[in-house]
Amino acid sequence: MVLYLIGLGLFNEQDITLRGLEAVRRCSRVYLEAYTSILLCGKEKLEALYGKDVIIADREMVESRAEEILDGADAQDVAFCVVGDPFGATTHTDLQLRARERGIPVRVVHNASVMNAVGACGLSLYRFGEAVSIVFFTDTWRPDSFYDKILANRRLGLHTLCLLDIKVKEPDLAALARGRVVYEPPRYMTINTAIQQLLEVEERRKEGAFSNSSLGVGIARLQADDQQIVAGTLEQLLEVDFGAPLHCLVLAGDLHVTEREMLEFYMMGTTDGCGCGNASGTQQES
Amino acid sequence: MVLYLIGLGLFNEQDITLRGLEAVRRCSRVYLEAYTSILLCGKEKLEALYGKDVIIADREMVESRAEEILDGADAQDVAFCVVGDPFGATTHTDLQLRARERGIPVRVVHNASVMNAVGACGLSLYRFGEAVSIVFFTDTWRPDSFYDKILANRRLGLHTLCLLDIKVKEPDLAALARGRVVYEPPRYMTINTAIQQLLEVEERRKEGAFSNSSLGVGIARLQADDQQIVAGTLEQLLEVDFGAPLHCLVLAGDLHVTEREMLEFYMMGTTDGCGCGNASGTQQES
Repeated sequence: MVLYLIGLGLFNEQDITLRGLEAVRRCSRVYLEAYTSILLCGKEKLEALYGKDVIIADREMVESRAEEILDGADAQDVAFCVVGDPFGATTHTDLQLRARERGIPVRVVHNASVMNAVGACGLSLYRFGEAVSIVFFTDTWRPDSFYDKILANRRLGLHTLCLLDIKVKEPDLAALARGRVVYEPPRYMTINTAIQQLLEVEERRKEGAFSNSSLGVGIARLQADDQQIVAGTLEQLLEVDFGAPLHCLVLAGDLHVTEREMLEFYMMGTTDGCGCGNASGTQQES
Repeated sequence: MVLYLIGLGLFNEQDITLRGLEAVRRCSRVYLEAYTSILLCGKEKLEALYGKDVIIADREMVESRAEEILDGADAQDVAFCVVGDPFGATTHTDLQLRARERGIPVRVVHNASVMNAVGACGLSLYRFGEAVSIVFFTDTWRPDSFYDKILANRRLGLHTLCLLDIKVKEPDLAALARGRVVYEPPRYMTINTAIQQLLEVEERRKEGAFSNSSLGVGIARLQADDQQIVAGTLEQLLEVDFGAPLHCLVLAGDLHVTEREMLEFYMMGTTDGCGCGNASGTQQES
């Protein structure tokens, strides 16, 4: 009857909304999109809460077998669950367009995503320019299209949210060449790797979008008990161990007075110590 | 022990997360911030769900009596609930800084806000520039600082989210001059008023940030059963009745192919009719 696109929020099974939980419990099939982001809990936790099986939808299924997801959705409700908000980073446009072509109504249950929760670092959401994605560099592929966007934001005094690459269930190309499908272990880009890549590109482009003394904010595991927010120069942040995924990075633009006040709490080397934002300040609900 | 900042999401009491509900039920006092946004349900619904009284925190209380909100938060948990995400539009910086000064830990429960849920209109969140606020013009105060921001976004081909003014519990200045505190009825800016004001400013500035033939998307009551999304020229949108609040408006920048495909569904004058996005397409969960 309906394809539900349900946002699961940022951290674990507790971040679904009451509206989302009611919808998912009504559905006959429940998919979990698990390649553009991850929840920091196993799918067993979701299954226990929902009272039904959860089918992991990898990239191959969503991109090549969308019809399979939609099959029967004209007779029974189907839920397609997405970490964050359904429109957070990837809009799953293709799935929606196919549903519409088949006359299947699409309903959306919104939730927090990094695109709005990044406000937790103290910088105003109003003052973010275009967000960028930073992908893992390889020996032969070192794309730097993010550089022009960061530069444009910088010239307007705006902050830039950098979303960091996730590689889940990527086929091992060497094995594929030998006719075998083997998946590489999942990889999540760290803040440190992102900064290394950024500085490498600045070194090449030399247009001054940022430097190793630019102010950045590293954010790890938003909404988790051990969420970590650290502000400092890119050089300083390079040395910080941010721990488990997911990570993201903000390049600060011009700071308003209140932004500076909020950010000071997370600044490295300030008098209140750890700079991790966990000791005495904004913590996340556990 | 803890000051919780809890996002309530977009529409009604069902939009709180399980994490947020658990936290609010644990608190001895629960405040609802009710002047930068509103839920489309009465506070009685919240009280029934939470099992406790909800204290409405108006602007005067939050700005002048923040200490009262924090009193006792060192001994018992206090919840400060915010429509959308706690960092959605207003960061309530002052309340957080005061809590920290008093050594009260602050914990955040994130939720959807218009800043990310606006992706529902089909435009990519990646491609939004700086958001702007449009306030009600008066006879003597017609601020147009949003114009430069829209122009800057436009030159980069980026979309602009326009957040529209809300006037809740504003003192009647004429009565105040006679020594009486009387509040004006609440006012919520419509998409139509916003467009009139935008076009008035373009008429004055004439720098081509937009015109009455520019493409816009009007969004009313995100996440509500009767959510309405209509795309069209500003001139067309001026004639649309978007109904009850809350409204917001997106000024479209350059469109990518997939954005155009998604937007077509909401376009006025398309063959599938109403253009309201409610008849057969992306609906909201009720």
